[in-house]
Amino acid sequence: MAPYPGVRLGVAYYPEQWPQARWRTDAQMMADAGLTLARVGEFAWSALEPEPGHFTLDWLEEAIGVLADAGLEVVLGTPTAAPPAWLVEQHPEILPVDVDGRPHRFGNRRHYCPNQPAFHAASERVVDQLCRRFGGDSRVIGWQIDNEFGGRCYCETCRGRFQEWLVERYGSLQHLNESWGTAFWSQTYSRWEQIPLPQKEPWDPSPSLALDYLRFMSDSYVRFQAMQTARLRERITGQFLTHNLMGFKFAEIDYRKLAADLDLVSWDNYPGLEPDGGHSTAALAADAMRGLKRKRFWVMEQQAGPVGWGLMQSPAPGQVRLWTYQAIAHGAEAVLFFRWRTARFGTEQHWHGILDADGSARRRFRELTRLSSELRELRQQIDASAPVADVALLHDYDSRFALQVQPTNGALGYEASVQRHYKALRGLGLGVDVLADTADLDRYRMLVVPSLYLAGPELASTLSAYVHRGGTLVLAPRTAVKDRFNAVPESSLPAWLDSLCGVRVTDYQSVSPELGVGFAGDGESFEGEFYGWYEELEVADASVVASYSDGAFAGSAAITERKVGDGLVVYIAGVATPPSLDRLYRRLSSRLGLRALQLPEEVEAIRLEGRGDGELLALLNHSEKGQRLSFEGSRWHDHLSGASGEGSFDLGPYGVAFLEGVGLTPSDRDR
Amino acid sequence: MAPYPGVRLGVAYYPEQWPQARWRTDAQMMADAGLTLARVGEFAWSALEPEPGHFTLDWLEEAIGVLADAGLEVVLGTPTAAPPAWLVEQHPEILPVDVDGRPHRFGNRRHYCPNQPAFHAASERVVDQLCRRFGGDSRVIGWQIDNEFGGRCYCETCRGRFQEWLVERYGSLQHLNESWGTAFWSQTYSRWEQIPLPQKEPWDPSPSLALDYLRFMSDSYVRFQAMQTARLRERITGQFLTHNLMGFKFAEIDYRKLAADLDLVSWDNYPGLEPDGGHSTAALAADAMRGLKRKRFWVMEQQAGPVGWGLMQSPAPGQVRLWTYQAIAHGAEAVLFFRWRTARFGTEQHWHGILDADGSARRRFRELTRLSSELRELRQQIDASAPVADVALLHDYDSRFALQVQPTNGALGYEASVQRHYKALRGLGLGVDVLADTADLDRYRMLVVPSLYLAGPELASTLSAYVHRGGTLVLAPRTAVKDRFNAVPESSLPAWLDSLCGVRVTDYQSVSPELGVGFAGDGESFEGEFYGWYEELEVADASVVASYSDGAFAGSAAITERKVGDGLVVYIAGVATPPSLDRLYRRLSSRLGLRALQLPEEVEAIRLEGRGDGELLALLNHSEKGQRLSFEGSRWHDHLSGASGEGSFDLGPYGVAFLEGVGLTPSDRDR
Amino acid sequence: MAPYPGVRLGVAYYPEQWPQARWRTDAQMMADAGLTLARVGEFAWSALEPEPGHFTLDWLEEAIGVLADAGLEVVLGTPTAAPPAWLVEQHPEILPVDVDGRPHRFGNRRHYCPNQPAFHAASERVVDQLCRRFGGDSRVIGWQIDNEFGGRCYCETCRGRFQEWLVERYGSLQHLNESWGTAFWSQTYSRWEQIPLPQKEPWDPSPSLALDYLRFMSDSYVRFQAMQTARLRERITGQFLTHNLMGFKFAEIDYRKLAADLDLVSWDNYPGLEPDGGHSTAALAADAMRGLKRKRFWVMEQQAGPVGWGLMQSPAPGQVRLWTYQAIAHGAEAVLFFRWRTARFGTEQHWHGILDADGSARRRFRELTRLSSELRELRQQIDASAPVADVALLHDYDSRFALQVQPTNGALGYEASVQRHYKALRGLGLGVDVLADTADLDRYRMLVVPSLYLAGPELASTLSAYVHRGGTLVLAPRTAVKDRFNAVPESSLPAWLDSLCGVRVTDYQSVSPELGVGFAGDGESFEGEFYGWYEELEVADASVVASYSDGAFAGSAAITERKVGDGLVVYIAGVATPPSLDRLYRRLSSRLGLRALQLPEEVEAIRLEGRGDGELLALLNHSEKGQRLSFEGSRWHDHLSGASGEGSFDLGPYGVAFLEGVGLTPSDRDR
Repeated sequence: MAPYPGVRLGVAYYPEQWPQARWRTDAQMMADAGLTLARVGEFAWSALEPEPGHFTLDWLEEAIGVLADAGLEVVLGTPTAAPPAWLVEQHPEILPVDVDGRPHRFGNRRHYCPNQPAFHAASERVVDQLCRRFGGDSRVIGWQIDNEFGGRCYCETCRGRFQEWLVERYGSLQHLNESWGTAFWSQTYSRWEQIPLPQKEPWDPSPSLALDYLRFMSDSYVRFQAMQTARLRERITGQFLTHNLMGFKFAEIDYRKLAADLDLVSWDNYPGLEPDGGHSTAALAADAMRGLKRKRFWVMEQQAGPVGWGLMQSPAPGQVRLWTYQAIAHGAEAVLFFRWRTARFGTEQHWHGILDADGSARRRFRELTRLSSELRELRQQIDASAPVADVALLHDYDSRFALQVQPTNGALGYEASVQRHYKALRGLGLGVDVLADTADLDRYRMLVVPSLYLAGPELASTLSAYVHRGGTLVLAPRTAVKDRFNAVPESSLPAWLDSLCGVRVTDYQSVSPELGVGFAGDGESFEGEFYGWYEELEVADASVVASYSDGAFAGSAAITERKVGDGLVVYIAGVATPPSLDRLYRRLSSRLGLRALQLPEEVEAIRLEGRGDGELLALLNHSEKGQRLSFEGSRWHDHLSGASGEGSFDLGPYGVAFLEGVGLTPSDRDR
Repeated sequence: MAPYPGVRLGVAYYPEQWPQARWRTDAQMMADAGLTLARVGEFAWSALEPEPGHFTLDWLEEAIGVLADAGLEVVLGTPTAAPPAWLVEQHPEILPVDVDGRPHRFGNRRHYCPNQPAFHAASERVVDQLCRRFGGDSRVIGWQIDNEFGGRCYCETCRGRFQEWLVERYGSLQHLNESWGTAFWSQTYSRWEQIPLPQKEPWDPSPSLALDYLRFMSDSYVRFQAMQTARLRERITGQFLTHNLMGFKFAEIDYRKLAADLDLVSWDNYPGLEPDGGHSTAALAADAMRGLKRKRFWVMEQQAGPVGWGLMQSPAPGQVRLWTYQAIAHGAEAVLFFRWRTARFGTEQHWHGILDADGSARRRFRELTRLSSELRELRQQIDASAPVADVALLHDYDSRFALQVQPTNGALGYEASVQRHYKALRGLGLGVDVLADTADLDRYRMLVVPSLYLAGPELASTLSAYVHRGGTLVLAPRTAVKDRFNAVPESSLPAWLDSLCGVRVTDYQSVSPELGVGFAGDGESFEGEFYGWYEELEVADASVVASYSDGAFAGSAAITERKVGDGLVVYIAGVATPPSLDRLYRRLSSRLGLRALQLPEEVEAIRLEGRGDGELLALLNHSEKGQRLSFEGSRWHDHLSGASGEGSFDLGPYGVAFLEGVGLTPSDRDR
Repeated sequence: MAPYPGVRLGVAYYPEQWPQARWRTDAQMMADAGLTLARVGEFAWSALEPEPGHFTLDWLEEAIGVLADAGLEVVLGTPTAAPPAWLVEQHPEILPVDVDGRPHRFGNRRHYCPNQPAFHAASERVVDQLCRRFGGDSRVIGWQIDNEFGGRCYCETCRGRFQEWLVERYGSLQHLNESWGTAFWSQTYSRWEQIPLPQKEPWDPSPSLALDYLRFMSDSYVRFQAMQTARLRERITGQFLTHNLMGFKFAEIDYRKLAADLDLVSWDNYPGLEPDGGHSTAALAADAMRGLKRKRFWVMEQQAGPVGWGLMQSPAPGQVRLWTYQAIAHGAEAVLFFRWRTARFGTEQHWHGILDADGSARRRFRELTRLSSELRELRQQIDASAPVADVALLHDYDSRFALQVQPTNGALGYEASVQRHYKALRGLGLGVDVLADTADLDRYRMLVVPSLYLAGPELASTLSAYVHRGGTLVLAPRTAVKDRFNAVPESSLPAWLDSLCGVRVTDYQSVSPELGVGFAGDGESFEGEFYGWYEELEVADASVVASYSDGAFAGSAAITERKVGDGLVVYIAGVATPPSLDRLYRRLSSRLGLRALQLPEEVEAIRLEGRGDGELLALLNHSEKGQRLSFEGSRWHDHLSGASGEGSFDLGPYGVAFLEGVGLTPSDRDR
């Protein structure tokens, strides 16, 4: 990952929502606040095409000009997330239908089925007009396709397209019937047209059908985006294409496929909507978004104040600044706040921007101005830094989809499992790249696969190769339980991986997630606990790291490892509690020579690769209380405060530091 | 408010549900129990018009005669709340459609869309027949229109009518688009026909559209009632028109508009359905119903026993009597129990009347007989009394509707906010008129507006005038946040009222309603707490009554007041806890010379204006435990028990007293 | 009840889901595990009739042959629970419609409306083909009709059939209108076609209509089954007909009517799906299933491992064996595990069979093999034993349906009420026959009717006759509240039974189920508590066993009894807590000379009638902890372990014993 070219700040701006007379004031205030980027246009379809085929793009060009005059560059959104009323009136079939068969109504946004021909046609037309006009405009530096793709449709058109998608995937009904096992419950299909839409509990369909429908819906958005990128690429010069994704937790679309067609990943970051204040969610999201294309990302929307129309909790003073630095330390090269001025109208009136709805610049404006000034000061240091990762964490959209279909034991929840491992690793100060694909794994000392419910021989052989080349692979329970058709393979678990692990799952206990079972290391002081789910292992060719101390499998292997040349495979047979994972990874890190830090729970430490010789460490205190950190034997200089010192370091409430020095970073790889 | 003409008791009676042979027995038993009023007919459509256009009204006349012979006067209901099966069969379109688009089925009640032409026509016909026959019948003293209007329909007819309603309200689409801010999310309408019905979470429509739909649905009932009242007024002589409303908590219809067309407000009182036993809910309801026309009301349905088909909790012995006295002390001039005999059939079999389903007269009958005899004894005192209010509390249906659309922080709930202020005021023994309009405010020493989410310049100037004429106005947080289109005004908050208050809201914290922040009075011992929501004020021209003692705004103003001539405006910047409100209102009362009582939580004291020179105080103990009240230096006589005494007074479990004497009432205004 | 002919074990097997090459292996492994029965075919419609009218039955005959070769006899299922895709494609109207009007989709099972002519026709055709081929096949010993009937449809065909059903039941609309009391809320019907389908809360229909619809839906399945049994009986020789019912808790179908048309009751037992581990649910289910035909039953599906796709909790080691012995001790003459091999495909992938999905025989196979071997050892003892009951417990499907319509106070829940009384009786070690009809009551010393919400004069006179002939009848509160039309009778409660009981209900208190009221015996140390619901009794001709010690009815009768010759009627006026019921039944048992045991909560004792002179007692420990039982003065021999001893006996975790000896059983009737 290349060093930062300097982090830019920007904002979402909706000129169509404000009087033209105000535009220059807004643009000047943005410039005064230190902003250099504005995203515009992504919800402006009815302003750009007020009647079918009648385009009015002058106002947009005017607005771009006003922004440019104040020194702002523009990211232009295609407006397809909000089809106009006239289009819905002409083609009511574009309204999506929910799983119960109810069509949505006009009046919100994202009110389209991604498979409707009339919607594709209208979208193509408006995108075409936009890129004809702005594809060569140097004031426009990039394009955002649509806005926050998502939503699953269950209309008859989707059903037809799904059947076509299946034809392409399976070729013959015989192949489909066999792969899905339709002999079960007499579901054999004799004509493609018989294949239904999936339905809800308690009428759960075949897991194979359900998984394929989730893939198909994901592919429908990928296909819709591809139509737009193709159109744009015919016309644009020197502009990037992006889409604003929704972080790690959003699991309706295979972001790996979506990102493949983009020049740049950007995403929207609202930590305030997370129950816990969201710092770990935001960190995981950032690392996962960076992992999609293995390069820096933009935060296209950064929470600027209270949001939502429920509790709409206010960020504490300092918290928005902290979130911004968090994004930067995790690899953001631009951060755009959402939004400039709080809306006076519409569903998002309570979604606060930088300015208040009355147009006043108050606390949020002042804080932003200070932040951008601070960032300019820090530019040299940030220019030369990038997050460093010794560990890769692999997540897999197919497994995520499969676990949406039949989640089984609550302790096995996909997102929670990933987050638990991620937090344990990050709690040691280890840098983690969160990847959705298996290319180029050899650069990582350790590869953690916290949940790999669905697998296949190809993936298994990739993992095996990684280990054989010296890597350390960590697998958690319930690995490779299903094949790519969401059927259970006719082999022992973990399927295709049992030889590599040297173990075989012979039984398991699924108990209430409130219940646990203990394990302890053989001949060393290493204890821990599983909860909800734990497996009995038959150990064929592996060492037992820990054994069950009680429960149905007392005395047998709970954690195993198998050496493969210089490589190592660790199999964790149950859902480990956070303290257990902490101990486990601390032990593994030490073994691999990755020095772990002791960090308070609410403090993040991100090791950066800097320009100088010294170690560079970003520190983020996500707590309302001050924190003291101990770096024994260290000497440090904080680029933010300008202070220098030795040994320990104090972080204020919601405080941030960029320390450079010696004796700071958790890895001794470079020593 | 004029003195009581004596309180009458009555009952809902359904002759069509019982054999004609039983009617005389029932009527005689009613008379024996001391009843003089019966409501009949409001669910009898199929008995009155068994086939389309074929009317059979003789039985009703016969029943009225039987009742009259026993000395009962009749309130006659129009039967439109329960359209017959044949009408639904002929016109299935009259069935209402829910927000998800599902039509209801025949088989309950209120199964009509208030906008269907066929339903209007059939209703008009049956009402016409009824008033031709009974409009001049002196045994019928009044009419109840329909029964408990309510329910929101989402059918295509409603959609069309809504569009017409919008044409009338906005005149042009340009005006609508601007007022609603449809530029947001590309929702600009180019034809009225494009305007959709609102839909549910998570597909929330524009708040402006949603609010207008709620207003439109409310207006639909007002219009339907107007059709009936117009018909009736063509024929009736000397009979009043009423509708049975559902108290304060029912917030689907603007009762101010509904009541405007009625001669008399009546309402239905089921405190047993409230979670807390409902005494404060019933008290607020009574004061709000009295406030609609600023005159005494009827309780058209008073709970007589266990009700519902869930828990159907039984009233404790003495509780029904207590509820009846509560209604009387709050201004009821008639109380009709629901219902005479417990239904043997139908959905309300478990909704207990005075008699059991087997026709037996048991405890409820005996208690009623004692109550009516007791009331006859008390008639002289009650005749000469009326509740007295120094305080007005203003509630606003538009604000209530607006907060239904996007409730934001749970601490800001409309009904709960009103109830909290109401309880605090009533807890001091202060009389409160709960008003839905701003006429004639000058008679009140204090005007409390606990939640005024939506406002406008006209209302602001009315409030200002009240203060300038010497009134004390109390405003709570989140005041005047929206204009009448449910858009955020382009001015500082509280919009239109900032000059009057002398403060401006510059920031706020929205936190979980479990979290609070303290405030304390400057230079005096006055402390309190806000929770959920609190605002930062810029004080332009006001005194700071209390400042934040912690939280994001520590040290700045939490409660302010501004003197305006003899008038005063108090702005409370956060959601105050009940103890804080108690202290605040105690302080304000003392300042205004309104003497506050010290009352146990479960005891209500209602100051009455009596005939004599002494003070008159109704006391109601809503607890199962006896209570001792201290009136230092008082002398009293209890009209109910006949006892006299000095100083303290004992109320038994669920006990009631009507004390006359000196040293009793909470106000020293008259001294 | 005749002695056991020896208990057989079997398994559900789906040859259509596995390669034919595997069949012989499976069959041999089944035989090795000691199985002698296999159920096949009940979900194989699309394999048996891959195209309309084209039947392929050879594979099934082949599979039956393979099983027979290994010594297994076959129960053949009719495959109507899973109509094929082609049938749904041809006749989409067969898809059931839910209460909200939404049609289900193809893709699960039970996706049929039981009233659709096209579905009846197709079902008849496939059943006809099957019984032509296998009706005389001696390898097939019986038939299972369909699979787990259930599900309520609300389609227009059902509506039409319901109207016809009503014509048959009521004859005239006048009779229906009067019986339902349609005068209430103007619901009088003038044409049968007006009668609607019932709808959901808050739009509850008339309770009379709702109850009749539940009866009609139940009858629809009875009728559909009758079509199949008629077809089968034309062809079969020496084969039994059964259906796999769903125990006591399933309350959508009147199992009394369903069982009447069957030769044998079988049912499906999944205790692991019950919140409490289900031992009491399974025991009650077994006794209720045995009571349907008053003879031994089969367990057609016995849980073999983790099931479901939620928590899918694993049975503890030993628990499946325990469940099997529990079924046997309650009267099972065959137990078939579900299923042989865990499915690789389809909705039930996580519903574990004996083998794992990979075909491996692991712990569950080994445990089954041990169990079947153990059972063979025990055969002699089991052959000669049968459960003995002194007590009958009556449940009534009409009352169950009626309480589904309007449940009122939560403490009155039908299934919970029955279970509470059942547990109290079984906790004393008393044998209980759970009956759904009133034939042949005289053989029981005590008849408990824990909930008889709906009654009539015929049932009342049957109960009266039982008492007059010397029986002891126990009635709990809320008895005979409704007539068979779900209307409240015009008589005092308990209607038709007040003279027999010698009491009349004059009032009641319905309070939150968390609240209670105490009662105490007159002149003896007997105390207890009611909760949720308790009644005031007017005692006409009965002795007061206990009086209220507090609450609204303090001092009046809480439990009464009336001697009628040698008989006795006990009326319990409230919902008694478990400890209170325990004391009550202990007192009654002692009075009737039924000796009660002292048992730990988690231990079941089932008294069996054995071949020898000694007492025979099955003991089941449903706890993970060992238990010591005291039988003072006893001598015993455990047929399972072979051990003998005196006095006390130790049961291991999830342990089972079949004790023979003296001084063991709870009844001294035979002494």
